[in-house]
Amino acid sequence: MGDMVVGVDVGGTKIAALVTTVDGRLLGQSVGPSGVAADMAVAAIAAAIDAALVDARRTLDDVAVVGVGVPGRVDLDRGRVAMAVNLGWVDVDLRGPLEARLGRPCVVENDVRAAAVGIHQRGIAGGTTHLAYLAVGTGVAAGLILDGHLYRGQRGLAGEIGHVVVDPDGPACACGQRGCLETFVSGPGIARRAAAEIADGVATSMASREPTTEDVFSAARSGDALALAVVRDVAQRLAWAIRLLVMAYDVGRVVVGGGVSHAGAAFSDPIRAELDRLRDVTGMGRDFLPSDVFQVLPVDADAGAWGAVTIACTEVERRRASALL
Amino acid sequence: MGDMVVGVDVGGTKIAALVTTVDGRLLGQSVGPSGVAADMAVAAIAAAIDAALVDARRTLDDVAVVGVGVPGRVDLDRGRVAMAVNLGWVDVDLRGPLEARLGRPCVVENDVRAAAVGIHQRGIAGGTTHLAYLAVGTGVAAGLILDGHLYRGQRGLAGEIGHVVVDPDGPACACGQRGCLETFVSGPGIARRAAAEIADGVATSMASREPTTEDVFSAARSGDALALAVVRDVAQRLAWAIRLLVMAYDVGRVVVGGGVSHAGAAFSDPIRAELDRLRDVTGMGRDFLPSDVFQVLPVDADAGAWGAVTIACTEVERRRASALL
Repeated sequence: MGDMVVGVDVGGTKIAALVTTVDGRLLGQSVGPSGVAADMAVAAIAAAIDAALVDARRTLDDVAVVGVGVPGRVDLDRGRVAMAVNLGWVDVDLRGPLEARLGRPCVVENDVRAAAVGIHQRGIAGGTTHLAYLAVGTGVAAGLILDGHLYRGQRGLAGEIGHVVVDPDGPACACGQRGCLETFVSGPGIARRAAAEIADGVATSMASREPTTEDVFSAARSGDALALAVVRDVAQRLAWAIRLLVMAYDVGRVVVGGGVSHAGAAFSDPIRAELDRLRDVTGMGRDFLPSDVFQVLPVDADAGAWGAVTIACTEVERRRASALL
Repeated sequence: MGDMVVGVDVGGTKIAALVTTVDGRLLGQSVGPSGVAADMAVAAIAAAIDAALVDARRTLDDVAVVGVGVPGRVDLDRGRVAMAVNLGWVDVDLRGPLEARLGRPCVVENDVRAAAVGIHQRGIAGGTTHLAYLAVGTGVAAGLILDGHLYRGQRGLAGEIGHVVVDPDGPACACGQRGCLETFVSGPGIARRAAAEIADGVATSMASREPTTEDVFSAARSGDALALAVVRDVAQRLAWAIRLLVMAYDVGRVVVGGGVSHAGAAFSDPIRAELDRLRDVTGMGRDFLPSDVFQVLPVDADAGAWGAVTIACTEVERRRASALL
């Protein structure tokens, strides 16, 4: 029986796979295309795993367990993915077909939770035992490490703060409500707001009438007033969300990642400025918002894949303890 | 060495004490006056304990551990109470003087957390392993049972959602911010809003220009339009808070208590109506807001004192395990 594990992070555009020893030493890795329909998901994941195994000069026979993080609501016990909106999946049995294809036991987890585990396990947020990972991309959700362990909640729904209503008069959300946090700070939300301002005739240096999120941050870097106003509003709402996460869970660190966070200082500097302001407003701010409370996840951290590795390692331990391996 | 425990709930106006066996059988109880300055707190708590012991026909010699819930920020390790605003305490060493007076080991915990423990332990919220207790009184805060255990957070600050800003243009809060949830739904917040409407010349059947919270709910019961509008707004904001608690922690039940909740159906019916509306808006609502998600804590549940009993029992077990008793 193998003593390697594989950790896979299925993103909207790419699939990353890591092959490691059960004590977390990296042996090989791969990055392949994603964005695939549900019926191709198993093939795409298997291809990424095969490529990582080639890189590691190993085979599936060396692998004890495969961990997979996917952007959707995951039924942990059944290995099914309900509603992976970005992938267009509605209700997909991922574990069964993947285990049939690979011949190895698989564990499927939500990608944001997997990334939170990876951040904790890899020490990316320092040694804190309480941290939130706030993913800001196509959607917005938080993964939580509380008392040193992944917290999933009663039904695996904990951390769904993207659908907290922050302005009842705000834009319509795909979830059916208006003004969810996600409608303001997600990538599509940022692009839509800039487009709406442009349609309203607000002056801008942006060439496109329908700029991408990257266009908005790029224009903000160049001092474009419209882009700066959108980015500042995003920063204020994300600082509010960071403070909410701290007040709700009393975490010592909130790590922000996801596609929107890749905009660098144009993204993080206004958030830091708003947190500084909030800290000074109130005595509670000094307790709740220490200067190191906020951190941007490094783009190359591979937190999701590393978290999937950790989840696979935990499953190896569980199976060894119950003599399943 | 005794095999009884005492649980004490120190409220703004009364102190409740229960004497039980270590397996939770009630032997005696008392209710005495509170609202005392910090230098009289130990005497007032001791008097309530003495009265409960008389009721139980026992003495302090029979008591293994005393558990005390107090409305303030508690340093669990040091037994100190920092900022019990309603009692006017700033930084009080409660455990030391109380242990000196009683000659028995004492454990001090925040009253909202103690009540959450009591609700869970007494099965008041059914058998759920994940619940939030939302206390709505002079202040607003949540106590959390996650995975069957009290969750305190990294620094004992978890659940401080009364100071989540829900309207940046809202009333000034004692914490230094504007528009905290607490400024809208706490007892003083409700009274202040009604008074502001009356001062603005809005017609009302209420006799006083500065009605109490009870006056507002009473007028709402009689169909007073001003009072009904205030109560409906409170209900909408509390339904938002209940949904926030569910989305953040994925609890199966939110129990609402505290002085404001004692207004009965005038308080709870509009909350239930708003939750029904939120449930219908979105598919997520059916997952997140099942019809039994909301419950008002029965006024006579003594959840805080029962929670203090449980906390005392846990300390008995801990001391027995480490041979301290």
